[in-house]
Amino acid sequence: MINTGSGHFFEDFRLGQTIRHATPRTITAGDVALYTGLFGARFAVQSSSAFAKAIGYPDMPVDDWLVFHIVFGKTVPDISLNAVANLGYAGGQFLAPVYAGDTLTATSEIIGLKENSSRKTGVAYVRTHGCKQDGTAVLEYVRWVMVNKRDPAAPAQGDHVPRLPDAVEPRLLGAACPPINLKAYDFILSGSPDRYGDYAVGQKIDHVAGITVEEAEHQIATRLYQNTARIHFDQFNAAQGRFGRRLIYGGHAISLARALSFNGLANAFHVAAINGGRHVAPLFAGCTVFAWSEVLAKAELPGRDDVGALRLHTVATKDQICASFPLKAGDGDDPAVILDLDYWALLPR
Amino acid sequence: MINTGSGHFFEDFRLGQTIRHATPRTITAGDVALYTGLFGARFAVQSSSAFAKAIGYPDMPVDDWLVFHIVFGKTVPDISLNAVANLGYAGGQFLAPVYAGDTLTATSEIIGLKENSSRKTGVAYVRTHGCKQDGTAVLEYVRWVMVNKRDPAAPAQGDHVPRLPDAVEPRLLGAACPPINLKAYDFILSGSPDRYGDYAVGQKIDHVAGITVEEAEHQIATRLYQNTARIHFDQFNAAQGRFGRRLIYGGHAISLARALSFNGLANAFHVAAINGGRHVAPLFAGCTVFAWSEVLAKAELPGRDDVGALRLHTVATKDQICASFPLKAGDGDDPAVILDLDYWALLPR
Amino acid sequence: MINTGSGHFFEDFRLGQTIRHATPRTITAGDVALYTGLFGARFAVQSSSAFAKAIGYPDMPVDDWLVFHIVFGKTVPDISLNAVANLGYAGGQFLAPVYAGDTLTATSEIIGLKENSSRKTGVAYVRTHGCKQDGTAVLEYVRWVMVNKRDPAAPAQGDHVPRLPDAVEPRLLGAACPPINLKAYDFILSGSPDRYGDYAVGQKIDHVAGITVEEAEHQIATRLYQNTARIHFDQFNAAQGRFGRRLIYGGHAISLARALSFNGLANAFHVAAINGGRHVAPLFAGCTVFAWSEVLAKAELPGRDDVGALRLHTVATKDQICASFPLKAGDGDDPAVILDLDYWALLPR
Repeated sequence: MINTGSGHFFEDFRLGQTIRHATPRTITAGDVALYTGLFGARFAVQSSSAFAKAIGYPDMPVDDWLVFHIVFGKTVPDISLNAVANLGYAGGQFLAPVYAGDTLTATSEIIGLKENSSRKTGVAYVRTHGCKQDGTAVLEYVRWVMVNKRDPAAPAQGDHVPRLPDAVEPRLLGAACPPINLKAYDFILSGSPDRYGDYAVGQKIDHVAGITVEEAEHQIATRLYQNTARIHFDQFNAAQGRFGRRLIYGGHAISLARALSFNGLANAFHVAAINGGRHVAPLFAGCTVFAWSEVLAKAELPGRDDVGALRLHTVATKDQICASFPLKAGDGDDPAVILDLDYWALLPR
Repeated sequence: MINTGSGHFFEDFRLGQTIRHATPRTITAGDVALYTGLFGARFAVQSSSAFAKAIGYPDMPVDDWLVFHIVFGKTVPDISLNAVANLGYAGGQFLAPVYAGDTLTATSEIIGLKENSSRKTGVAYVRTHGCKQDGTAVLEYVRWVMVNKRDPAAPAQGDHVPRLPDAVEPRLLGAACPPINLKAYDFILSGSPDRYGDYAVGQKIDHVAGITVEEAEHQIATRLYQNTARIHFDQFNAAQGRFGRRLIYGGHAISLARALSFNGLANAFHVAAINGGRHVAPLFAGCTVFAWSEVLAKAELPGRDDVGALRLHTVATKDQICASFPLKAGDGDDPAVILDLDYWALLPR
Repeated sequence: MINTGSGHFFEDFRLGQTIRHATPRTITAGDVALYTGLFGARFAVQSSSAFAKAIGYPDMPVDDWLVFHIVFGKTVPDISLNAVANLGYAGGQFLAPVYAGDTLTATSEIIGLKENSSRKTGVAYVRTHGCKQDGTAVLEYVRWVMVNKRDPAAPAQGDHVPRLPDAVEPRLLGAACPPINLKAYDFILSGSPDRYGDYAVGQKIDHVAGITVEEAEHQIATRLYQNTARIHFDQFNAAQGRFGRRLIYGGHAISLARALSFNGLANAFHVAAINGGRHVAPLFAGCTVFAWSEVLAKAELPGRDDVGALRLHTVATKDQICASFPLKAGDGDDPAVILDLDYWALLPR
C-alpha cells in the first residue's frame, strides 16, 4: 500500500512520540522577495543587507514569521492534516537568525493528549523544533490542535495536559539577535525615532492601514511554506463544507498584522518570542485586515544594553478599522476580531 | 516595417527549418521560489540544497517542469502564437540538471508539416532543444500543434508526418540525474518510505488533494516563463472568443498534477522523460484540479543500481475527485479530465 | 506620542526641505523573478546574465522601472500618503545600472510648492534621488503631486513653481549604460532585427497584445516596492470612496506598457530617461491594458557609437486595442487612455 499522505488521526499519536517532518527547505532570496510582495513589511533590518550589516548582522535575516510559517508548514502533513482547529500557541522562541541559503527542517514531540468527551476528537499538544542544516536550533514553539479521530472507539494513546508558560521569560529572549551596534542604527532609515524607552506599558497603538486579501495571495503564501492543509486550497470541497469557501491559513493574518504594525512599531525589528496566540475567527478572501497593538509589558534583557523587549498584544480584525481598539463584545470576542497574538519584540534602547 | 511579433502562420514553416528563439533566460533562486509559491511541490531534492548535496547533486536542481515551461515559453512567439491547439508531445528527455544561475536558450526544428483538408490550418511537428549558456543540452522534446494559415490558398512548405516514439526507451533515461548516494537518501525527510521496488505495474494512486486555480496565479506563472500566448492573459479579447474567458496554459495543469503527485510518489524525485501528453480539455480559473496516476511500466537503467524508472500515466481532472480514477466515459474522455500525461520518473532503488 | 506614519500634509512641506526616506531595500534575484512573473517583459539584457555579460554589463541589470518603483515607493510615506493625485513627472534620469544585491535608498527635496485656490490642497514639486549602498546615484526624477492640507487655514510654506525641462537632453543620456559590444549583441536572441537606424521619427507602433490585471497582481507588485498608498490595498475603505474600489498604482500601467512594448521595441533595452508622464485615467482590476508608441525624436549620444536614443511616446489604454493609436477624443483625452508617457530608450546602432 503506497503512502499517499493521509496524515495522522488523534488515536495515532502517543505521548512522548517524536516525529521528524518531511521536506527540508532551503530558504532563498526568492522566498524573501515573494514574502515582501505578499505582505509588504518595511522593517529595515529584514529589507536591507546594508542596514543589517551596519548594526551587527552578517547579512539581512529572514523575517521571523517566514521562518515560523516554513517550520509550521512542515508539521501539517503529520500533525494537523486531520485537524478541526488550531487552538493555541505557547512558549515560542526564536533561537538563531536565519539567512538566505539556510535549509530548515522540523521535528515535533507529542507532549500532551486529551481526548474530548465526544470521543470523536482530541487535543494534541505538540512541541516543534526548527533546525538549520548544521543542527542549529532556530525556533521552538508549542501548539495545540484539535484532531479528528479515525475511529471514535479507538483508545487515546495518552491522557495528559502539559503545563505551558503564560509568557516566555525575558531571560530567554534575544538568542536570535546578535549584539546591535546602536551607533550605526539609523532611525531615519528605519522609519521612526521611537525606541524602547518611548513605549509605555498600557499604551495602545492603532496601526491604521488595512490590507484586503485575495485568494491568489493566501494560496501562494501558504504553498510557499509547503503547508498542505487542504481547506486553504480546495474550493471544490470547501464549497460543501462549514464555510462554503476556502479558509485562509491563520498565519496569513499574523503576517499581515506584523506588516501593518510597522505603523507605530517600526523599530520593533525582531520577534523574539511567541507567548500565545489564538485564531479568534476565520478569515476569508475579500476581507480587509486591520490591526492594533497594546504594550503589555517591557523588559530589559539580562546582560544586554543594546535592545529591550516589548511584550505586545496585537489584535487583527476583518472589515473593521482599529481606531477604537476592538477586542471584546459583551462576554465574548468582538465579531470583527480574527487574531489575538501575544509576543515579545525587540527594539533598540 | 518594424517587427511587432505577429508570429508565424502554417505556410511560413518549411520542413527542416531551424528557428533560434528569442530571450535567453537566467533561472534564479527567485524563479524557483515563485514556482514553489504557485504550485507547492514538496519533493525534497528540489526543495533543499542540503538534501540534494547529500545524495550527489552539486546543488538543488531546478524543478524539471519549470525548465520545460521556460524552454517551451521561448518557442511560443515563433511556433504557436497563431496556434489553434497544442495537440501532443513525444520524445521528451531531460538531458542535464539545471541550477539557479544557468541561462537557458531554445532552438526548434520543423520536423513535420501536414496541412488540414480545410486548408485553413495545418499541423506542425516541432522538435525543440533547450540549452545552457555553455551549450549543454538540458531538454529536448517534440510537440505538434495545429496552426492557422494566414491565407488558405498559400501552399504548405512540406507534407510529412514524422514517426515518433510511443515512449522514450529506458536506456535513454537518467542523463539529468547524477549518481545517487542511496545511503544518504533520507526517506523520512523525503516524505515517504516508498521506493522503486514498492510500486507495481498497474497500480493506481489517487493523489487525493485538490488545488483551485486563480487567474492571478496562472498569469503570473505563464509570464514567469515569458510565454506570450495571448489567450492566457487578455480577457478583453477572450470575452469575444470561443470560451468567453482566458484559457489557462496547459503546462499549468502539468505542474499542478506534478505537485499533487507527491501524495503517493514522494520519492519520484526526477522527471526523466516525457513519453506523451494531451491537454484533453481546457482549464479555467475557479476550477479545482485533482490528479491520479497509474504505473504503466517499470524499468531498470542500464549500468545503474541507484535509481529505477516508473513509467507513469498521470491524469488531471477539474472539479472531480480522483478516488475512482476517472479517464474515459463511453467512447470518449471523461468530461472532467483535462490532462493525460505519460512520462518516466526516477526513484531510489 | 508614537509615530504611526500618518504622512505629511501640504502645509508640512517647506521649500528646499530635504527628506531622507525610510526602509533601505536590497534588490535580489527574488525581486527580479517576481517582477518578471508580474509583467512578463522579455528584454534579453534584463532576462539573461549571459546576454548581458556578452555585450558589456558585469551582470544582468535590474529592470529600470523596477528600480524606479522601488525608489518611488520609499517616497510615498513621506510625500504622497495624503495625496489626491500624482500629476506628472519630469527630468527623470537613470544614472547607474542596478544589480541584484544592491541596496537602494531615496532622498527627496521639495523644489516647488503651490497652494490651490481652494486652500484645501496644494501641489508639491519633489525631486527624488535614488542611491546605492556606496552612495552611487542610480536615479533622479521630479514628480509633482496634489496633496491635501490638514487645515485649510494653515499657511503654505512656500510659493514657487519650478521650471522643469520638457525633455532630458540627449547629452545627459546613457550614464546607466556601459559601452555595448555590438559584435556580441545577438539580434536573434534579442527577439528582433530592428535597431536604432530602423526607426523613423513619427513612426507609430501598435504593441498588439493585451494583459488583464488582477487585484492580487497589482497588490503584490505594489507591496514588493513597499509602496504604502492605501488606496491600492484597502477595499474596505475604498468601497466608501470616489471609485468604490481599489485604484491600481499608476506605475503598474507603466510596467505593463513597457512589457507590451517588446512587440516592436525589442531592442530598446534600456530606459535612459523619463521626460514626462501623466496617469490620464485610473486603472482597475479586471481591465485589460494595451499600448502603442510613437517615435517622437531620435538622438545620437555624444561620444558614443554603440547605442542611440529614441524619444518614445507610449500610450496605454484599458479595454481598447491600439490598432488605431487612440489618444485624443475631441478636445480631451480618449476615455480609454490611462497612461501618456514620454521617455528616452537606448537601442543598439
